[in-house]
Amino acid sequence: MQFFAVVFLSLSLAVNVGTQKPHPCRSPPLLDGSLSVTPLTGEYFAFTKYTYDALGQRLRFREFGYQHNQSFHMDILMLFRQGKLYNISYHDQTCEKRALNASFHPMEVPRGAKFQNQLILGSSSGPGQGLLVNTWTGEVPEVQGKYYATFTEFGCLPVSNFYYSERTGWVIVSFFNNVLGIENPEDFFPPPFCDTEEKETEDVVTDFFFFL
Amino acid sequence: MQFFAVVFLSLSLAVNVGTQKPHPCRSPPLLDGSLSVTPLTGEYFAFTKYTYDALGQRLRFREFGYQHNQSFHMDILMLFRQGKLYNISYHDQTCEKRALNASFHPMEVPRGAKFQNQLILGSSSGPGQGLLVNTWTGEVPEVQGKYYATFTEFGCLPVSNFYYSERTGWVIVSFFNNVLGIENPEDFFPPPFCDTEEKETEDVVTDFFFFL
Repeated sequence: MQFFAVVFLSLSLAVNVGTQKPHPCRSPPLLDGSLSVTPLTGEYFAFTKYTYDALGQRLRFREFGYQHNQSFHMDILMLFRQGKLYNISYHDQTCEKRALNASFHPMEVPRGAKFQNQLILGSSSGPGQGLLVNTWTGEVPEVQGKYYATFTEFGCLPVSNFYYSERTGWVIVSFFNNVLGIENPEDFFPPPFCDTEEKETEDVVTDFFFFL
Repeated sequence: MQFFAVVFLSLSLAVNVGTQKPHPCRSPPLLDGSLSVTPLTGEYFAFTKYTYDALGQRLRFREFGYQHNQSFHMDILMLFRQGKLYNISYHDQTCEKRALNASFHPMEVPRGAKFQNQLILGSSSGPGQGLLVNTWTGEVPEVQGKYYATFTEFGCLPVSNFYYSERTGWVIVSFFNNVLGIENPEDFFPPPFCDTEEKETEDVVTDFFFFL
């Protein structure tokens, strides 16, 4: 009798789990991590270390990559509340400031995204062998674009984002080595040589699209 | 004093872990799972359920995909020891038999592969939020090819394989929903209508390259 009760309970649980579709989620507000950007056209590749503060609406990217077989390096600090973008070069001790007139996009399943599928990377057969992830899809009519964004089920951490627009073609953004919290809070301070150099370029950055 | 001992031990462990490069590994011999195949040319997409038996050198693929906007379906059984390949259609109740004159390739880090990097998909900050994976790279001089193969650190399960050859261009194979063991051992039996139909085509399959 007890055996049947257990079987019935297991089956009920299985059915419940089967009908529980994941809900859209937002990533933790403080994150350090890395990401790579690979457009399928193959014209460039970029590897980025990022520091993300959704509470203070601040981002720091340190990017290294290749474009047309030439390497490049970028160090960008974005303070959305202050409306400032800093393009920093420690090598040249230069700091290009720009007005940043864009909204901060928190890392999250975009509004209106449709649940696509849930799957396990690796395996659920043993501990530490698998990762349960959800993929969401949606369209970006402004740029005739679409995306497939994958987040972990537990923790809502970004895993990958396949993004398409007419201008860019398909671009794969892969996230990894994410850590909850900010390792160095000074990542969001412009370096000292940003204060001394007063020039601010006229360009206004308006179309920043962090995660979609 | 005890505090310093703990700190020292933690630091020693961290250094040890830092210098321990992963070793090449072989996947478990019995696996069920899914994989997708996406060539970057975009000319086709395939989704496959596989059953893998490295002990008996047997493989079953049930594949669904699109090529040039046309959907296709394939159901292939490969018995390497017997040297037989079956191309099965339940819909048409047909079974095309071919001689299979290829070696079985177990799922493993290929010989001669170089360790590329280790990273965490998701995050190691919380349980169930991350997956530790290793990427290996190598060349396939016969086809002027190269690959980046990623396996889980724990369990040596395949995660992805970026493969390039002159003929195919870049192809991404992504593995997911792997389960240790074989769910249905009859996956490796040809269906009954394979026995009745006697014709065996002349073609010999020799260049089967399962995992590289």
